Amino acid sequence: MTGTTRVAVLGLGYWGPNLVRNFHGNERARLRVVCDARPERAAAAARAYPGSEPLTDAQAAVAHPEVDAVVLATPVDTHFPLAKAAIAAGKHVLVEKPLAACREHAEELIELARRAGVVLMVDHVFLYTPAVRKIKEIVDRGDLGPLTFINSVRVNLGQFQNDVNVVWDLAPHDLAIVDYVVGRLPRSISVFGAAHKDRQLEDVAYVNLDFGEGLIAGFHVSWLSPIKVRQLTIGGADRCLVYNDVDPVEKIKVYDSSVQVRPANLEDRRRLLVDYRSGDVWSPHLDRGEALQEVVAHFLDCIESGATPLTDGEAGLRVVRILEAAQQSIKAQGGRITL
Amino acid sequence: MTGTTRVAVLGLGYWGPNLVRNFHGNERARLRVVCDARPERAAAAARAYPGSEPLTDAQAAVAHPEVDAVVLATPVDTHFPLAKAAIAAGKHVLVEKPLAACREHAEELIELARRAGVVLMVDHVFLYTPAVRKIKEIVDRGDLGPLTFINSVRVNLGQFQNDVNVVWDLAPHDLAIVDYVVGRLPRSISVFGAAHKDRQLEDVAYVNLDFGEGLIAGFHVSWLSPIKVRQLTIGGADRCLVYNDVDPVEKIKVYDSSVQVRPANLEDRRRLLVDYRSGDVWSPHLDRGEALQEVVAHFLDCIESGATPLTDGEAGLRVVRILEAAQQSIKAQGGRITL
Amino acid sequence: MTGTTRVAVLGLGYWGPNLVRNFHGNERARLRVVCDARPERAAAAARAYPGSEPLTDAQAAVAHPEVDAVVLATPVDTHFPLAKAAIAAGKHVLVEKPLAACREHAEELIELARRAGVVLMVDHVFLYTPAVRKIKEIVDRGDLGPLTFINSVRVNLGQFQNDVNVVWDLAPHDLAIVDYVVGRLPRSISVFGAAHKDRQLEDVAYVNLDFGEGLIAGFHVSWLSPIKVRQLTIGGADRCLVYNDVDPVEKIKVYDSSVQVRPANLEDRRRLLVDYRSGDVWSPHLDRGEALQEVVAHFLDCIESGATPLTDGEAGLRVVRILEAAQQSIKAQGGRITL
Amino acid sequence: MTGTTRVAVLGLGYWGPNLVRNFHGNERARLRVVCDARPERAAAAARAYPGSEPLTDAQAAVAHPEVDAVVLATPVDTHFPLAKAAIAAGKHVLVEKPLAACREHAEELIELARRAGVVLMVDHVFLYTPAVRKIKEIVDRGDLGPLTFINSVRVNLGQFQNDVNVVWDLAPHDLAIVDYVVGRLPRSISVFGAAHKDRQLEDVAYVNLDFGEGLIAGFHVSWLSPIKVRQLTIGGADRCLVYNDVDPVEKIKVYDSSVQVRPANLEDRRRLLVDYRSGDVWSPHLDRGEALQEVVAHFLDCIESGATPLTDGEAGLRVVRILEAAQQSIKAQGGRITL
Repeated sequence: MTGTTRVAVLGLGYWGPNLVRNFHGNERARLRVVCDARPERAAAAARAYPGSEPLTDAQAAVAHPEVDAVVLATPVDTHFPLAKAAIAAGKHVLVEKPLAACREHAEELIELARRAGVVLMVDHVFLYTPAVRKIKEIVDRGDLGPLTFINSVRVNLGQFQNDVNVVWDLAPHDLAIVDYVVGRLPRSISVFGAAHKDRQLEDVAYVNLDFGEGLIAGFHVSWLSPIKVRQLTIGGADRCLVYNDVDPVEKIKVYDSSVQVRPANLEDRRRLLVDYRSGDVWSPHLDRGEALQEVVAHFLDCIESGATPLTDGEAGLRVVRILEAAQQSIKAQGGRITL
Repeated sequence: MTGTTRVAVLGLGYWGPNLVRNFHGNERARLRVVCDARPERAAAAARAYPGSEPLTDAQAAVAHPEVDAVVLATPVDTHFPLAKAAIAAGKHVLVEKPLAACREHAEELIELARRAGVVLMVDHVFLYTPAVRKIKEIVDRGDLGPLTFINSVRVNLGQFQNDVNVVWDLAPHDLAIVDYVVGRLPRSISVFGAAHKDRQLEDVAYVNLDFGEGLIAGFHVSWLSPIKVRQLTIGGADRCLVYNDVDPVEKIKVYDSSVQVRPANLEDRRRLLVDYRSGDVWSPHLDRGEALQEVVAHFLDCIESGATPLTDGEAGLRVVRILEAAQQSIKAQGGRITL
Repeated sequence: MTGTTRVAVLGLGYWGPNLVRNFHGNERARLRVVCDARPERAAAAARAYPGSEPLTDAQAAVAHPEVDAVVLATPVDTHFPLAKAAIAAGKHVLVEKPLAACREHAEELIELARRAGVVLMVDHVFLYTPAVRKIKEIVDRGDLGPLTFINSVRVNLGQFQNDVNVVWDLAPHDLAIVDYVVGRLPRSISVFGAAHKDRQLEDVAYVNLDFGEGLIAGFHVSWLSPIKVRQLTIGGADRCLVYNDVDPVEKIKVYDSSVQVRPANLEDRRRLLVDYRSGDVWSPHLDRGEALQEVVAHFLDCIESGATPLTDGEAGLRVVRILEAAQQSIKAQGGRITL
Repeated sequence: MTGTTRVAVLGLGYWGPNLVRNFHGNERARLRVVCDARPERAAAAARAYPGSEPLTDAQAAVAHPEVDAVVLATPVDTHFPLAKAAIAAGKHVLVEKPLAACREHAEELIELARRAGVVLMVDHVFLYTPAVRKIKEIVDRGDLGPLTFINSVRVNLGQFQNDVNVVWDLAPHDLAIVDYVVGRLPRSISVFGAAHKDRQLEDVAYVNLDFGEGLIAGFHVSWLSPIKVRQLTIGGADRCLVYNDVDPVEKIKVYDSSVQVRPANLEDRRRLLVDYRSGDVWSPHLDRGEALQEVVAHFLDCIESGATPLTDGEAGLRVVRILEAAQQSIKAQGGRITL
């Protein structure tokens, strides 16, 4: 079909198959190449999605003459060389988070894509969920008042990364959301982490960010929990928003804060101390929809229209810069790193 | 009645009246003096509890000839001079948390009480709740396995302290609980905080502790939340315990961790990633009972028997040492302080 | 003090002491007599509240010359004779729910109190809670739209009544709330119940009410549950309100119903079937306050001003009429009884 | 492939496509025919699953010479004629719940299938979920003690049936689960319902069942709720089980009942009245898995082995008998019907 974007998806581990399914399901795309170094994975994907060609050679995939756009769901340290080769071959590129393993690589990819006139987009997938869209809308119209703190707990039921620690694995989600909602880089970061048993990679960590202007943030990320928690709290002077992604019924709650911060008399203080909350609570209805479907549609939109993606190379770079500082801090056992 | 301990309670602000009520309600004690610099408060307490004498002069109260035990619910910086005077007058002393405003003062009180042969106890009230007793029991019998992380969120609906910041106000609870459960001092601490509007005192903070042996902890304390949260998570290699003090029905939950930390194959990884928990959950029944009633009974027990309190001066000192380091760190904007 | 209402409280079992405490705490009342057939209970109450006189003879208490108002927390079948004697002696009367054991008794008390010009009030305590007041306000301003169903679960952790079954023990609360909110009697009732072990009294029951105009209600009451549940759902054409009295944080939630009752197309149907709710949720902030304190204040108001109580004899009669029909139905194993 | 069961699925409305997908995904089956009176639906299914033949004529589908098994997801009143024709043509039959619109039809289908030697199975899908399997296991090993009550709330976000009322639409799930768990028919049933606006079909109802031996049950079913609720409570003398199908984390909870049903003294009564639960809580881990995949596998097992399905015609008949009695009762406005 004329006008169809021909796509190669590289990396068929955990996340890749979701990308394959969503590109296949979008009628503006044509899934042309499915690539994994493990031949059986490439073959299985090609069987499931007739019309796609199985490859095991990543270089062949990114430079394939019948491919317009390359999607990278490969390990972090391959993002840079593969994206660079794809851009050099004139392909548009969608990269899994994080965009690259270091700041220099991210900057170089941005510059290369700019010069080549191709789309460079990073899959900060949460920015395409109805929940995070609603949070952005609520914060932007000032409902919360000036932000005072952000608190996140993001813990998984196990370790799925052998190449990066838990901060690089899980914190990019929070960093991308907070970057989108807050709209500025933190001034400094401090990260405490611990590795357990015979492992070298930190599997639990506390990430502290100072955004200036009275806003601080703390993220707890972990592979060690027997319960999945996905909870982000954004506090403002007027209201406080809690985003519990595991709750099927009330993902977002907004708590009014009619609280007197310094109650004048003893009676008010007593009342507050025995009370559980200080104002009304509101939980907005959210549309449903698979975020990845939105990611795929947005990538195709940008290719077709030449628009800049919401999660462009710069957004990817900002997250990589913070991750890099986090890595320095964790190695200095919580030393404070200024960005 | 012979054998009755005669008590003076000083400080009739928020917490003091609870102490007054509980000492009055214990038949082994006799509430002899109620003291507050505001005469109307002292008078009101004396009216409500006939037989007690209202005083406005703290020095007169701590040295009162018909008083055996002094209870201090006064501002933190008065703890040292008043406790010192009480000990000098041969009284037993129960002090609100934190024990003192600095390490030197705490150490001096311990030494003075030792020499005078009087009981020095600090009111780390949570250690007298059925919930924390149950947590200690569960951790001590090894149910959780080696501890890997501790996470706490403790946020109030307003600011009630004008003399100390939110770390000194709220973190002593978590520090006392963790000291009791873990049984060793942290090696280092790092604290990020922020103050808002025209205030000088931090009203929101992140406290990070490194206990060594693979155990790290993070506490989020705040006066800015419109919801009260009291949640402490203790993670171990085998199980994870969540203590939600606001939940009337399931205050403590223990989650089995049959999780394979590094799932071997793709299918196991997929399963874990869509699952919400990895094992059974158990919520033990807790006895009910007012913690402060236990505090009072334990203080009287120690006076009568000469036993060392569970929360003796040393326990108070450990918390003060951490708070002092926290203060240094917060002033250094998150700098890491070794204990 | 002039104008003070002198009160006798009869029945010092479970609920009576709460009434004693609240009358003692109200400065417009004077607790004059505390009465229980068990001398030690009367004596204990008199010791705790100096100035009150302990009695064991109910007739002496209700006719006491220095008593203006009689409060009955005695077994249900004593309500009629004691209230009748009190009214005959010219006393105002506050009776625990249910007002009487049968319709005729309730009607006679109403008539007697009317003639004697004294206040007759029944302690439908939930109508004096901030939660039920808020529910009434929400329903009255039409937020829910025309009511379509009411569903209640009220289960206790044990049996505390030896004189009445679980319907007479627990359903009066729901009946009084629903009477207040709906404002009309049901047309018919059907009750299924079961007794267990060697007991004669039903300990679990389902109560079904038909209010006409499209409104039906179902109550589940039980003494057999190991969890306390206090949940009342009121459904309307536009919104649905859930009142969970056990939830300390969100006692009342109002769910918007933007639901298309008959979704036109397959896509809308699919969406609804995978969704968990169909609109926004709002949880209003509630004032705190002990309901019984309000009951006492309202009773004293009515005595002083001559106003008719919110929960007057007629309100008590309506509940008794439904209970009587319920009793008929349960004996007929769920037979439908028209009121 | 030899041994493959060739399947025709009829009815491609809401549920049919799920059956189509699961038969297609099972390698022991071959999806041969997809049939719907609306040609575009049949065509769409055939496009999505190459190899299947689209038909619009149900009679042709059930008698198709290359079909071994017929699956009916068509309206309730078509179940009997289509299943009968399929059996007459020697096909195995899987029917959506309820099995038939009346008892006589269900009995005739059972007899016809028996004589023809084909499998007749009804899709009581909840019996194939890990949750209901676990419930059965817990009840069967006596953990709950003798059952005392069953309470269910099952409410949908809208009406999806134009041919049957809410009892026929939703109650079959509860009836099938309870039939499986309890293992005997109720003795009597009473149903209250109401229809709203211009509709003829009841959209909200209360279903009461008396199982004898001290066990009663109440189901609340509704199309009018703005929240989806799927909660089933099974109470026993020793423990109580709550199955909340909407909770992703703790679907099943078992509450210990160390409750003294008749507390001997006032202190025990007070304690119970202020407490929220009386024993430990346990939430077993559940395997994940799509129930419909199990339904399909079990149907194919029975075809291959000749075994009797767990949800055979008799199970379907029992549910139909209760539904029929429910219909009589609802028409008699809650009249009690003996089975």
